[in-house]
Order: sequence, then structure tokens, then C-alpha cells
Amino acid sequence: MPSPVDLGDKLAQFNATWSPHTVAVFNGNDIALVKAAGEFVWHHHDDTDDLFLVLEGSLSIDLPDGTVTLGPGQLFVVPAGTPHRPRTDGEAHVLLIEPSGTPNTGEPSTAAPRRVI
Amino acid sequence: MPSPVDLGDKLAQFNATWSPHTVAVFNGNDIALVKAAGEFVWHHHDDTDDLFLVLEGSLSIDLPDGTVTLGPGQLFVVPAGTPHRPRTDGEAHVLLIEPSGTPNTGEPSTAAPRRVI
Repeated sequence: MPSPVDLGDKLAQFNATWSPHTVAVFNGNDIALVKAAGEFVWHHHDDTDDLFLVLEGSLSIDLPDGTVTLGPGQLFVVPAGTPHRPRTDGEAHVLLIEPSGTPNTGEPSTAAPRRVI
Repeated sequence: MPSPVDLGDKLAQFNATWSPHTVAVFNGNDIALVKAAGEFVWHHHDDTDDLFLVLEGSLSIDLPDGTVTLGPGQLFVVPAGTPHRPRTDGEAHVLLIEPSGTPNTGEPSTAAPRRVI
């Protein structure tokens, strides 16, 4: 029987921050959840846009021309090639979409491993 | 200045049901909102998966091997080629991801026009 993917249930399965956990795949893209806390690194992706949808908390994304701050139910797409730095004062729960295999830091050598839950 | 896409604000901009409204584009995919009420048609997409994330209300998706029912914070990916029929007893607000230009009925001749808000 087909069953839904419950984002709350999936978020309860891990605590690591800045570690995307894939919960579904759509046309070769990972639908992933991440717990954000503190400051991530400035990075960019040459070949892909980066979608952030905040589910809980508040996430700021520093960009070359300013900062966008997202609350629950708000999303932002960082265009391919654009440097960005996600950060948060507290903790935020975020849904990401990225082609499977995209290094979360922009660099395979420093990226978190792909985890599927 | 970059600004967030607020899904609630976007949903307040239209009332039509089964009419996807694109609110962002990610790598050539439309991130769209739809208000679902009643029963849609059975259809399939030969070339693309179909992602449904429920934001409000309850959405059932009939599939060849059963029905999956989604509430807020739950998602489901219908694999490419799989017949499906979304329906709801009340009204549901749903986020969709589909390659831009995908006919929502599976057939260009009967599809809703692409609307960007």
C-alpha cells in the first residue's frame, strides 16, 4: 500500500544539524530535510538552483545583494552560481530540493554524506 | 533586495480549484500551489514524477494499488507513468512540483493554463 511521507516523523529521526536527510526523490532530485542551527559556510552550486522551504523556525540566507529571512511557509530559490550562506539564530527545520548528489557545501570534499531516511 | 515567497500570501491571491499557480521555478520545474476541492480526473504523466505536499486540509490520491491520504506536512511522489486521481472531501491547499509545461490533466488539450503569481 502506498503511504505518505510525514515530515514531522522524519524530522524526529535525526538531530544532526546541517545534514540533509533525503525523504523522497522526484525526477532525480532529493527532497531533503535539514535542521539548521548557527551559521553554515558561504558556498555556491555551479549547476543547480537551491530551494529552501522553512517548516519551523527562522532561516536567514545571506546573498551578495542582501539577506532574505524565511519563516514557516516561506520559500526561496537561490539561483545556480549565486554565493549564499544559510544561518539561523535559533534552530530551523527546512525542506530542501537539490539534484541527488549535490554537495551541500558546494564541494564534494567537505560535503555531508547523502543520508536517506 | 531578495524577498521570500510567502505561500499563505500566494494562496490568498486565487480561488480557482484544480488550477496550479506557479510561485517559483527551480531548475525548470514549477513550484506551484493548487486549491483542491472535489474530485480531479484520473490521469498520468509519461515523462515526470508528480510531487504533492499538503499544506492545509486533507488530500487523497487514488492509485492503481490503493489510496494514499495526505494531511498537512505530508507528501507523496507519484512515479512517472502511474495513473492517479487526486480528490478531497473538503478543500485542501497543496504544493506541487512539476517540470514547467506539464499538463495538469496529463493532456495538453484539457490542461489548465500555466499561471504565474
